[in-house]
Amino acid sequence: MRNAGGDGRRRMHLCAFLFGTGHHVGSWRQPDAPLDNGTTLAHWLDCARIAERGLLDAIFLYDGAGLPPMSAEVMSRTGTATFFDPLVLLPALAVLTERIGLIATGNTTFDQPYYLARRFLSLDNLSGGRAGWNMVTGVNPNEALNFGKAMVPHADRYARAREFAQVVRRLWESWDDDAFLMDKASGRFFRPDAFHVLDHHGAHFDVRGPLCVPRSPQGHPVMIQAGGSEPGRALAAETAEMIYSVQGDLAEAQAFYADVKGRMPAFGRDPGTLKIMPGVYFIVGRTAGEAEDKFGALSERTDPAVSMERLRFCMGGHDMSRYDPDGPVPEDLETQSGTTHLRIMTAIARERKLTLRQLADEVAAGGYGHWSIRGSAEQVADQLQHRFEAGAADGFNLMPATYPGGLRDFVELVVPILQKRGLFRTAYEGRTLREHLGLPRPAVGGAQRTSAAADG
Amino acid sequence: MRNAGGDGRRRMHLCAFLFGTGHHVGSWRQPDAPLDNGTTLAHWLDCARIAERGLLDAIFLYDGAGLPPMSAEVMSRTGTATFFDPLVLLPALAVLTERIGLIATGNTTFDQPYYLARRFLSLDNLSGGRAGWNMVTGVNPNEALNFGKAMVPHADRYARAREFAQVVRRLWESWDDDAFLMDKASGRFFRPDAFHVLDHHGAHFDVRGPLCVPRSPQGHPVMIQAGGSEPGRALAAETAEMIYSVQGDLAEAQAFYADVKGRMPAFGRDPGTLKIMPGVYFIVGRTAGEAEDKFGALSERTDPAVSMERLRFCMGGHDMSRYDPDGPVPEDLETQSGTTHLRIMTAIARERKLTLRQLADEVAAGGYGHWSIRGSAEQVADQLQHRFEAGAADGFNLMPATYPGGLRDFVELVVPILQKRGLFRTAYEGRTLREHLGLPRPAVGGAQRTSAAADG
Repeated sequence: MRNAGGDGRRRMHLCAFLFGTGHHVGSWRQPDAPLDNGTTLAHWLDCARIAERGLLDAIFLYDGAGLPPMSAEVMSRTGTATFFDPLVLLPALAVLTERIGLIATGNTTFDQPYYLARRFLSLDNLSGGRAGWNMVTGVNPNEALNFGKAMVPHADRYARAREFAQVVRRLWESWDDDAFLMDKASGRFFRPDAFHVLDHHGAHFDVRGPLCVPRSPQGHPVMIQAGGSEPGRALAAETAEMIYSVQGDLAEAQAFYADVKGRMPAFGRDPGTLKIMPGVYFIVGRTAGEAEDKFGALSERTDPAVSMERLRFCMGGHDMSRYDPDGPVPEDLETQSGTTHLRIMTAIARERKLTLRQLADEVAAGGYGHWSIRGSAEQVADQLQHRFEAGAADGFNLMPATYPGGLRDFVELVVPILQKRGLFRTAYEGRTLREHLGLPRPAVGGAQRTSAAADG
Repeated sequence: MRNAGGDGRRRMHLCAFLFGTGHHVGSWRQPDAPLDNGTTLAHWLDCARIAERGLLDAIFLYDGAGLPPMSAEVMSRTGTATFFDPLVLLPALAVLTERIGLIATGNTTFDQPYYLARRFLSLDNLSGGRAGWNMVTGVNPNEALNFGKAMVPHADRYARAREFAQVVRRLWESWDDDAFLMDKASGRFFRPDAFHVLDHHGAHFDVRGPLCVPRSPQGHPVMIQAGGSEPGRALAAETAEMIYSVQGDLAEAQAFYADVKGRMPAFGRDPGTLKIMPGVYFIVGRTAGEAEDKFGALSERTDPAVSMERLRFCMGGHDMSRYDPDGPVPEDLETQSGTTHLRIMTAIARERKLTLRQLADEVAAGGYGHWSIRGSAEQVADQLQHRFEAGAADGFNLMPATYPGGLRDFVELVVPILQKRGLFRTAYEGRTLREHLGLPRPAVGGAQRTSAAADG
């Protein structure tokens, strides 16, 4: 496991979380933004190659199976209503890159464990062991309507997610690593005892298995989770190998880090086998002034109606038209949904005494509850280093305000500083995503043992 | 529409239907067969590039979400238990090829219309309009067990498939062709009235839509069907743009061709907008003797136990151990399942007075009910031309006994003869799969009109 460099120093992990042309709602209107209605391969290849040139651990793609819950009029002023299925885009990027990890979001509420397991393990094989699955339960009610379902309550989504993850991991262990003999002379293609039937019968799924896909060079895809709620933390401690968490505040990030890592031994897991990587929204310049100028240019291109709708989306899709936009954030919002975004954003708004409209502008600027920094490359590097060394993170999921531009800025301006400080690799040391992240290659049979320990 | 060459002559369409390293069960044991346990990109890229060099319309990939229903011991002597998810493999091939069409099978019994529609339309965009969807309902009971379902009766599977296909087509028409303005100055990304909500509520699915994927250069993927049963014919006449049919016999192929095309006007469809392309299993050599030698070499590598199990699989997975392998094909088989494969194979067996074991050898050799030819390049070309000109086909789905070898033989030996006779293109005239096949680009709103006509 390569958690540290040759000097024994602990190294930071960095992924680029990408959706559209930037996390700022004004990003698509920038003069240098690519014109992408979601299906421009060149844009995504550009991002992947910049990330690879910067030696990042992975690119990480958003997914959602429905339009954001906003009016057509407002949505038509945003740039992210349409996009590639990430599991169609990533195979293309896999064969056009060499080392960069390839992570995509996949939904446990609407998809089937067999199909999802098959797609991600196929991608993992195709890419030579560079795939990761970010498991989400979905918060957008428009998704549910595309699958003939009402929105499922939060706790039920997590119960299903837990069983889903167990089934997927066991499906990924369907075949032994040395299963395939392919012996033309004897006519034996694989050892007849080299595959494993799950015969899973649970509350949500009945899946016999085995999966029709062999193991990959890294065993199977890295398991990632986003949720920060109570059931989300429990599930992450049990199953996740990376967490993409939402943490605006240092103290909260430290508490979260200690809490989740502390839960792991109960599941028989070494805390080193989970990388906690909060999202960080940023705008970086050669100087602090340049970063401010970039921010100003983006703000000029922000449509207030879009900001308000984006806030509503981040707030779990609640209709906010009955509240005064120039009044405080309403008290009764929190009781309607248990999502972490909602909790963090209402906390931010109250602490800073923001009106609803001001909170909307904050959200439009990109972080939507994530830690948000802006400044020179040195300043950005300082802040990342501080959190990394303060027991708040094993690395970060970078959320540039714009891309490819903002991602290129990070790679060209911030990465060299982190490298100089010994905080980031100066070359890829491995070929698989697990090697990049310093995660162990899972053994066949491990998933079954983990779930037995958790249930017993 | 390019149904004909510059000389006005009607041209044949050719796709390569591929699974593993060949349709002959002994193919993987040939000295020149690639060692592929289902995840060797180089093998598939090789096949795709050979097909493209041969100016074929498309490659066409098998899919199934479960192991073949046979014992582990026998399965371990076959080469096709594990394979890429075709919707992960095809995006990779899309960016490594230029013109070849990319067709994959997708299941209507276990998948969700929203997810399937999204994947195929994403692939269609990624490939510049070269995708096709081969709709199947599934005949393997092992698939059902991976989705917590008992095997659904044939008629019910088709009722679901019909609704599934209607929903997918309407999802593919979610956005107008001119939806995206991407006007940075005004801030308008798309016309707010440019997407369409389905609000579909049917017996099997409730899907609101729209799909989060724009139209592709060819509008949407080509719709392909395999079924030859009564409900399969009705569904094809209503929705299919290509049929991959199973026809051993010329008279039957002619009758099928006339029957299905004759049903189309009732659905308001022009018979020219459906290409009927039966499967043709073949072994071709420079001379007839060379083809026989190839056949002999494959037969030597055929395991009798594998042949018998493959027959059982083709027979719908019925347990055949209670029948005498040296006796005739049992009378009661046909009543247990309505599949076309079963009907054709029992007819072949009775006509030629084959025992069960002899029928198994026939199946092992590759055709499993498909038209099967063997001979010199001239002989193969003659036979294809004869069926093509006798009103039995608009072209063929080629099923080589081995690949890449057998596919390369076809491209190098047979294609030049067909070209010389004016029966096949000498250069790609278009860029999309619809242009290759001479199919019209569908208009937005067409799916809704077709299903209204069918239901009214």
